[in-house]
Amino acid sequence: MTGQDFSPKRCALVGGGVIGAGWAARFVLNGRDAVLYDPSPESRVRAEAILAMARAAWAKLLPGALPQEGRLHIAATLDEALDGADFVQESLPEIETLKCAVLARIDALLPAGVPIASSTSGLLPTRLQAGLRHPGRFVVGHPFNPVYLLPLVEICGGEQTSAETRTRVATFYRAIGMQVLHVRKEVDGFIADRLLEALWREGLWLIEEGVATTAELDDAIRYGAGLRWAFMGTFLTYRLAGGDAGMRHFLAQFGPALKLPWTRLVAPELTQTLIDRVATQSDDQAAGVAVRALESLRDEALVKIVRALATVGPQGYGAGATLNAFVAGRATVRQDGAPTGWQGVVPPDWIDYNGHMTEHRYLQLFGEATDRLLHAIGAGMDYVAAGQSFYTVETHLRHLGQAYGGMAITVRTRILDADDKRLHLFHTLTEAGGDTPLATAEHMLVHVDTARGRGAPMPGAVAEAIALLRAAQGGEPRPEGAGRAIAMPRRP
Amino acid sequence: MTGQDFSPKRCALVGGGVIGAGWAARFVLNGRDAVLYDPSPESRVRAEAILAMARAAWAKLLPGALPQEGRLHIAATLDEALDGADFVQESLPEIETLKCAVLARIDALLPAGVPIASSTSGLLPTRLQAGLRHPGRFVVGHPFNPVYLLPLVEICGGEQTSAETRTRVATFYRAIGMQVLHVRKEVDGFIADRLLEALWREGLWLIEEGVATTAELDDAIRYGAGLRWAFMGTFLTYRLAGGDAGMRHFLAQFGPALKLPWTRLVAPELTQTLIDRVATQSDDQAAGVAVRALESLRDEALVKIVRALATVGPQGYGAGATLNAFVAGRATVRQDGAPTGWQGVVPPDWIDYNGHMTEHRYLQLFGEATDRLLHAIGAGMDYVAAGQSFYTVETHLRHLGQAYGGMAITVRTRILDADDKRLHLFHTLTEAGGDTPLATAEHMLVHVDTARGRGAPMPGAVAEAIALLRAAQGGEPRPEGAGRAIAMPRRP
Repeated sequence: MTGQDFSPKRCALVGGGVIGAGWAARFVLNGRDAVLYDPSPESRVRAEAILAMARAAWAKLLPGALPQEGRLHIAATLDEALDGADFVQESLPEIETLKCAVLARIDALLPAGVPIASSTSGLLPTRLQAGLRHPGRFVVGHPFNPVYLLPLVEICGGEQTSAETRTRVATFYRAIGMQVLHVRKEVDGFIADRLLEALWREGLWLIEEGVATTAELDDAIRYGAGLRWAFMGTFLTYRLAGGDAGMRHFLAQFGPALKLPWTRLVAPELTQTLIDRVATQSDDQAAGVAVRALESLRDEALVKIVRALATVGPQGYGAGATLNAFVAGRATVRQDGAPTGWQGVVPPDWIDYNGHMTEHRYLQLFGEATDRLLHAIGAGMDYVAAGQSFYTVETHLRHLGQAYGGMAITVRTRILDADDKRLHLFHTLTEAGGDTPLATAEHMLVHVDTARGRGAPMPGAVAEAIALLRAAQGGEPRPEGAGRAIAMPRRP
Repeated sequence: MTGQDFSPKRCALVGGGVIGAGWAARFVLNGRDAVLYDPSPESRVRAEAILAMARAAWAKLLPGALPQEGRLHIAATLDEALDGADFVQESLPEIETLKCAVLARIDALLPAGVPIASSTSGLLPTRLQAGLRHPGRFVVGHPFNPVYLLPLVEICGGEQTSAETRTRVATFYRAIGMQVLHVRKEVDGFIADRLLEALWREGLWLIEEGVATTAELDDAIRYGAGLRWAFMGTFLTYRLAGGDAGMRHFLAQFGPALKLPWTRLVAPELTQTLIDRVATQSDDQAAGVAVRALESLRDEALVKIVRALATVGPQGYGAGATLNAFVAGRATVRQDGAPTGWQGVVPPDWIDYNGHMTEHRYLQLFGEATDRLLHAIGAGMDYVAAGQSFYTVETHLRHLGQAYGGMAITVRTRILDADDKRLHLFHTLTEAGGDTPLATAEHMLVHVDTARGRGAPMPGAVAEAIALLRAAQGGEPRPEGAGRAIAMPRRP
């Protein structure tokens, strides 16, 4: 047993702050049941609010590919939360004695084979697992806020953590869309938080000394290096700054700056004065915008950045590549099996100022249905690469109803006619499971020799595939609305 | 004279490395002539290569809104570079004595009113300006790589820098799309590089101690905090991590961690062993991909991130808001004046696998032309917000030619017919300045009371505006292709 088939169904969350509730949302959106225990009376409202935000974000992140959700349950006691759990994620406050005490109780209640992961930002797993009866199943799985959107999770084992536990937990995290970073050497703060803490401590010094405010410090990052850090990180970026000579040149050029007093080299004393200054500046920076509204902006930006990165390079880049691999790896049903059917969900950001799906998105959907049919008759991307293609020369759209954001929709495709050079198609868009057409599209396509840039007869195999599909549709009536012209009859 | 109308036309670049050439590209793309001097024989090739990359990136960043370029000239001598310059940007290596010597020569050669900005990453302006005869015109303008894409520039004056110089240089930087951060207190490393240096120094320690490789350090950022830093920065992010209680709660929760040994607090010694380790790990990380290819990936990612951020929230967020303000602030001509004409440039990423503009993008363009007409007849966004709208019920598209990426195009709109509830439009898309239709669109729109969800007569003012436009178009013949139905006539 290597742990590579570990796939928990019921995940216990111990601690339901921003991090614990974020984990719960990620689990639920990935079809796992999440049972959350937190002594705070606010935990239910918080967990449900965060799940709602996460659901809205995922609908935009993965339009048309959302799985069946698991259930979110708020447990009244720790024992109830653990009952039947096959995975535990602990996200309590960063107090070592508190974590050790609760972890010991979790360890005592659960069967030995259930992994226990801690969300600690930097406490050492060897110390956290020291008092457990089954320390081998304990590991750190450190995520980043918002847990339901940021892919990074650091896995760090202690001296007694088993290799199988690391593998099992990594397998599970990857299955729910995360990017695992194995921390090979156990150090305080692991890897990411050491870097974040260095920047944070220096920022506090600059506030302490009156050099910059919280807003200026944030601007110094978000308009500059932060844009690069979204996909490359410091070291690859600096390699590029070195030009063609790369990192060695960069070190030669900027190495001497390490001797300059560019960092204060110590953590500042967190005096009440400094606390007040940071908090006041942060209030000014937020300018009265509530945390929930800022979170909503944050999620919108993260979704759009990750989706943008998914289109960079041939396979996506950074978090975009992680998303692409995640989507490719899960069993999504975007088609209903037949090449003349296409299913999907309307992405919420396809909605126009009327509250309806934007006009050109209808044509985009019909275009996807056309591409699917072309792929099915042997005229897909390879065919185009080899020098032949079908070009659309004429399109007739009718808008008969409205599609809304999040609506599950189906496009059915009829081949109305064809000859050796032409293909006449008719698409009907309905709500999934419904019969009422919301829109139709009629297309005339011409078969083209793309090198010569002119019409050419289609190969026999393609013509045969079209004939087979037409035969299969032979019994269906000609759709209403085909062959229409736009006209405005005068009323009497 | 406040300096707020400062708009140099001929910019001298002294030093043509990655930063100097990046400045040159930004100047040229913003219609300024850039004259670059660098003693290295590679400077011409590098500057032209970087300008080519920058031009490709801007075509995607600002489709349809690119201004007339300035010229790039490589000067053979410093004197030639400075001749006639009304702005100087110095980007020499970070060696204080070298910078001081060259700045003194620039100062001696140039009229006193020409501002001189230095790209130094962290040397103090008071020291750099000390030997100048006109120190008041000297200021630091510190950009970030790639200069032509990242908006941040830190402006830091020395003790003798005049207020007017700060204002003039800030005005110019904003006019070329940058986000100015005024550094109010002169400190080594200014603001951004202190933060970057803190992270970099800690990263070098983690490599020195064998905790992580350059690739792992980059992953620790780019899959996690780096995604947030692209738009929010550390302090606003941590405010959100504090939940509804905000920054004060966050400080209470994570303040104690400042006492933990999460950073090494000193810069590591840059030994030959450490240099070799960093350089070797960086080579492994790049996996044989050339710097130029990585730069291309970087630019693609930056363009897509900034464009994504331009759609976040009502005005865009972070660098996206900067881009939107930049686009709004420049004199672009997207329309030809008449409400029945629309002009633009095909964005390069609108191209499909056939090398042509994707089908649904044609409809998007025609939709923009329709929106423009509706706005002109008094039925724009405010009208929709007030409860009335025009809905498209039928569309007929004909593809007669091809639009390619970067092609300047025009859409002309005809009102074919109208009554009190219906509007019958016909759009023709051509290459700008051309007559041959590439595509046409015929639309039937119905006037709707959106609250009741049904057709309703349009108000008199709207009907009158339509009548006026029809009258203005009265002499034009009915366009060829109007009223067509899709059909496949049998050949004999």
